[in-house]
Amino acid sequence: MAIPEALRRDLADIQTLEDPGSLRMKSRDFFWFSPLLKASLDAKRADIIAVPGNKAEVMRIAAACARHRVPLTVRGGGTGNYGQAVPLAGGVLLDMAKLDRVIWHKAGAGRFEAGARMLDIDRALAPAGRELRFYPSTRQHATIGGFVAGGAAGAGSCTWGQISDPGAVLGVEVVTVENEPRVIELRGRDVLKVMHAYGVNGIITEVEVPLAPSHPWCERIAAFSSLSAAARFAHTFTECDGIAKKLVTVHDPRVVPYLRRLESYAAPGEAMVIVMVSEPQAEAFELLVADHAGRVTFRRSAEEAQRAAFGGGGGMAPIYEFTWNHTTLHAIRIDPTITYLQLRFPPANNLELIDWVAKRFDNEVLLHLEFQRRFGKVTCSSLPLVRYTTPQRLDAIMAELDANNVAVSNPHTYVLDNAGWKRVDAPQAEFKRMADPFGLMNPGKLKHWRTEETVAAE
Amino acid sequence: MAIPEALRRDLADIQTLEDPGSLRMKSRDFFWFSPLLKASLDAKRADIIAVPGNKAEVMRIAAACARHRVPLTVRGGGTGNYGQAVPLAGGVLLDMAKLDRVIWHKAGAGRFEAGARMLDIDRALAPAGRELRFYPSTRQHATIGGFVAGGAAGAGSCTWGQISDPGAVLGVEVVTVENEPRVIELRGRDVLKVMHAYGVNGIITEVEVPLAPSHPWCERIAAFSSLSAAARFAHTFTECDGIAKKLVTVHDPRVVPYLRRLESYAAPGEAMVIVMVSEPQAEAFELLVADHAGRVTFRRSAEEAQRAAFGGGGGMAPIYEFTWNHTTLHAIRIDPTITYLQLRFPPANNLELIDWVAKRFDNEVLLHLEFQRRFGKVTCSSLPLVRYTTPQRLDAIMAELDANNVAVSNPHTYVLDNAGWKRVDAPQAEFKRMADPFGLMNPGKLKHWRTEETVAAE
Repeated sequence: MAIPEALRRDLADIQTLEDPGSLRMKSRDFFWFSPLLKASLDAKRADIIAVPGNKAEVMRIAAACARHRVPLTVRGGGTGNYGQAVPLAGGVLLDMAKLDRVIWHKAGAGRFEAGARMLDIDRALAPAGRELRFYPSTRQHATIGGFVAGGAAGAGSCTWGQISDPGAVLGVEVVTVENEPRVIELRGRDVLKVMHAYGVNGIITEVEVPLAPSHPWCERIAAFSSLSAAARFAHTFTECDGIAKKLVTVHDPRVVPYLRRLESYAAPGEAMVIVMVSEPQAEAFELLVADHAGRVTFRRSAEEAQRAAFGGGGGMAPIYEFTWNHTTLHAIRIDPTITYLQLRFPPANNLELIDWVAKRFDNEVLLHLEFQRRFGKVTCSSLPLVRYTTPQRLDAIMAELDANNVAVSNPHTYVLDNAGWKRVDAPQAEFKRMADPFGLMNPGKLKHWRTEETVAAE
Repeated sequence: MAIPEALRRDLADIQTLEDPGSLRMKSRDFFWFSPLLKASLDAKRADIIAVPGNKAEVMRIAAACARHRVPLTVRGGGTGNYGQAVPLAGGVLLDMAKLDRVIWHKAGAGRFEAGARMLDIDRALAPAGRELRFYPSTRQHATIGGFVAGGAAGAGSCTWGQISDPGAVLGVEVVTVENEPRVIELRGRDVLKVMHAYGVNGIITEVEVPLAPSHPWCERIAAFSSLSAAARFAHTFTECDGIAKKLVTVHDPRVVPYLRRLESYAAPGEAMVIVMVSEPQAEAFELLVADHAGRVTFRRSAEEAQRAAFGGGGGMAPIYEFTWNHTTLHAIRIDPTITYLQLRFPPANNLELIDWVAKRFDNEVLLHLEFQRRFGKVTCSSLPLVRYTTPQRLDAIMAELDANNVAVSNPHTYVLDNAGWKRVDAPQAEFKRMADPFGLMNPGKLKHWRTEETVAAE
C-alpha cells in the first residue's frame, strides 16, 4: 500500500526507514523453518518502518495509524517462528528496539521496556544476583515484550513451568491503537488478555515479571546408549527437586550429527542429554548419569558458560543455543528439506509415547525433548525435526500424533485462529475490540476478525 | 555410671558441666510429645557434659571416650522428637553448641560447623541474598548438624523436596570415636551413611549444603470452608511451578483453636492454609484463593516476617512456628493428653486419602498437612494431633493407616531400628563399624547392634 503523506507528516522527527533492504529484513522472522509459511509469507513487506525512541513516540505512531486507518505491526527481536512479526497487509512496522530500558528491579521482580533483549536484561541483572526465570534459545535477540506476546517456554521451564502459568507475568503495559491512544496497565490474571496474542490487540510497552535469584549455571553433556535411556534419565533428573537446574534437553542419536559443534560429545548412535545445573550440584547430576549407564562427555564451568553467553569469550556458543528451536536452525543449515513440529507429551505416560513416536515415524520424525514442569508434574515437549515431503503427509503425521494423545501445536500456520496453542479465547478477543477498534493491528493474523465498522457496513 | 577419673583428666581444660540442672536439661529433647517415650526416657541422664570449643577438642573427647570405653552422645539443638539426643546409657554428652561458625559460602553453596543454629546461619547469609533451602519449625534452636543427623523436611520442602534427596547435602565431615580419632569427609552419595542416623555412627563436625538464592518471603493465611477444600487449594497452589514458595500448611478446623495466636484468622469450623510466598507473587496466590472460594485473612510483609524471625520485632512469632511439629507443641500446652503421628500421603491419591482419614478417625486424629514435593510430584505429609488413650489403640490406628496406603513413621519409639523412616540400611551400619568400633555412640539406640568385641566374646 502507499503510505499517506498525512501519516508521514504525523511521524515527522520519529526515526523511519523505507529502503528495500530494511523493509525486507524487518518484515521477516524465522517463519522459513516451515516450507508452508515460507510460501505464504516470503513476499510480505511493510511499507515503512517506524522506530520510536520512547513511549510518547509509540503513542504518536499509534494515533497516526488509527487516524489514517493504516495497518500497524509490532516487531520485537523478530525471532518468532510463525510470522508473528510479519506485516500481512503492509503498512507501518513498529520496531520496538529502542525501548530497551530496565525500569526497575528488586528482590523477586523486575520491570522492563518491551524492546529490551532478554540477554541484555540478564546482563544488567547479574551484578545483583538476579535473572529472568525463562529465556528462549534466541535469548540474544528475543525481546521481553516479544516473548510475552508470542513465546511460551524455554530454558528455565524445567523449574518454573510456562510463561502463561499463574503468577509468571505480574503486569503488562499496553498502548491502544486509537485516535487518542490510551496507556493501560494489565495486572494479575488480566495479563492473559495480551499474552500469546502475537501483538494483535495492543502495543505492549512494558513488562513486569518475577525474577529468579540466580544460580551459577554450569553446562554438562552426557551420552546414553539410546533415546529411550536418555529420556528416562532426563525425566528422573528433572524430578530431582533438590537439584537446581535451568535446562534439560534430550537429542535423538540422529539429531546429534546436525549439531556439528557438539557431535564429538556422543559416539555415533548415542543419544545426548544437555543440562544447565547449579554448579555446586554438578556432582549430584554426574552420579545420576552413572546410575543410568551414561557418561559425561562435556563440562563447562558456570563462569565460562556465562562468558560464552554474555560475549567476549570466543569459543563454543552457549549450550542453550543447541536446544529448543535452535536445533531446527542448525539442521536446516545442513539439510534445507528439514522442517519441524511442536509436540507436548502428557505427564502420565510421556516416556511410553516417546518410544512410540520414535518407532512409528522412524526416520521421518526425529525427536529432541525439552523437559519441563507443567502444573506441578514433570513432562516434556518436543520440536522434532521432520523430513518434509508434502503438506498432506505433514497433516497426516500431525493427525496421527494428536489421535494418540501427543498434543500438536501446528507451527505451519500464520493465522492465529488456527494455531495449536488455541489461546485466542474470549478475553484476548474482547480486549482487541477495545485496544484496536479499527482492526489495524496486523490484519489477516486473525482470520475471522471483523471490526465494528465492518459489521455496521454489512 | 561413674565417670572414670582418667577420663576426667583427659578432658582437662575442656569446658564440662556436671550440675544436676544442666545434666537434666541437656539430656532431654522433645520426646515428651509422646507418652510412650516420656515413660521410657524421662529419667535418662548423661553423667558429664563436655562442650568443645573447636574440632581439636572434639577429637580429644572422642579419643578419651574410646580409650576409657565410656558412652558418648552427640547433641545439637535438642529439638528432636524421638530422643535423638537422649543418652540412653549415660556417659559423656557432647554439646556441639560452640562449633557454630559459618566456614564459607558462595553462590549456590555453603559450609557450616555442625553446631551452627539454622536461624543464625540464615541471619549470616541474608546480606548476600542467600539462605538455607530448608528449615524445621524449630529453626531458632535446631543446628545444621542435628538437622542432617535427625531431620527430614520442613519449610522449603514444598519447593526443594527432602534433605535426603539427591544433591540436597553436598558434604559432611565426621570425626570417628577411636583411640586416635580420624576426620573423614563424606561427599556425594556417601553423605547418606550418616544422614538420619541420629548421631550413632560418627560425630558430624561440618556440613556443606546447596544454598537457595533468597526470595522475599511474605506470610499469608487463608480460610476455607472445610479441610477438604483447603487441601485441594493447597495441592493446586503447590503445583503452581511459577509461584515461588517456601511453606504450604493446612490445618483442620479442629486444629485451629489450639493455635491461640492464629485463631482469629479463621471463623469457627473453617480450615486454614498458611503460606510463605515470594512477595511480588502474593497477588497470584490471592487470585487462586478466590478461585477456590477461600478468603485471605492475614497478611504480613516479607520485611516484617523477616524481622519476626530474626528478632527485634516483638509481635507475632514467625508463621512457620505454627506449622510442622510446632503444631503439636501448641496443642499439648492446651491439652496434655494430645500426642501425634507422622504420616506420608502418596502423590497419586493424597486428597482422597485425606478425606478418608478425616472421616475414619473423626475426633481422634486431627490432620494438619505439610505440602511438599517428593521426587518431582506434589503430595503432603502430616503430623496429625492424636487424642491419646492407650498404646494398643495407638498401634491399631497406625496399623490401619499403613494398611490403607498412608505411610506411617512411628514417632513413639526411640530405637532407631524400629523407626518408621527405616534409614538404618547397610551403608549406615557399615559406616558405624568403622567410625564407632567400640559401639560407644549412644548405646541402646540401635537395638541389635553388636561390636566386634562383643561378637568375639560370644
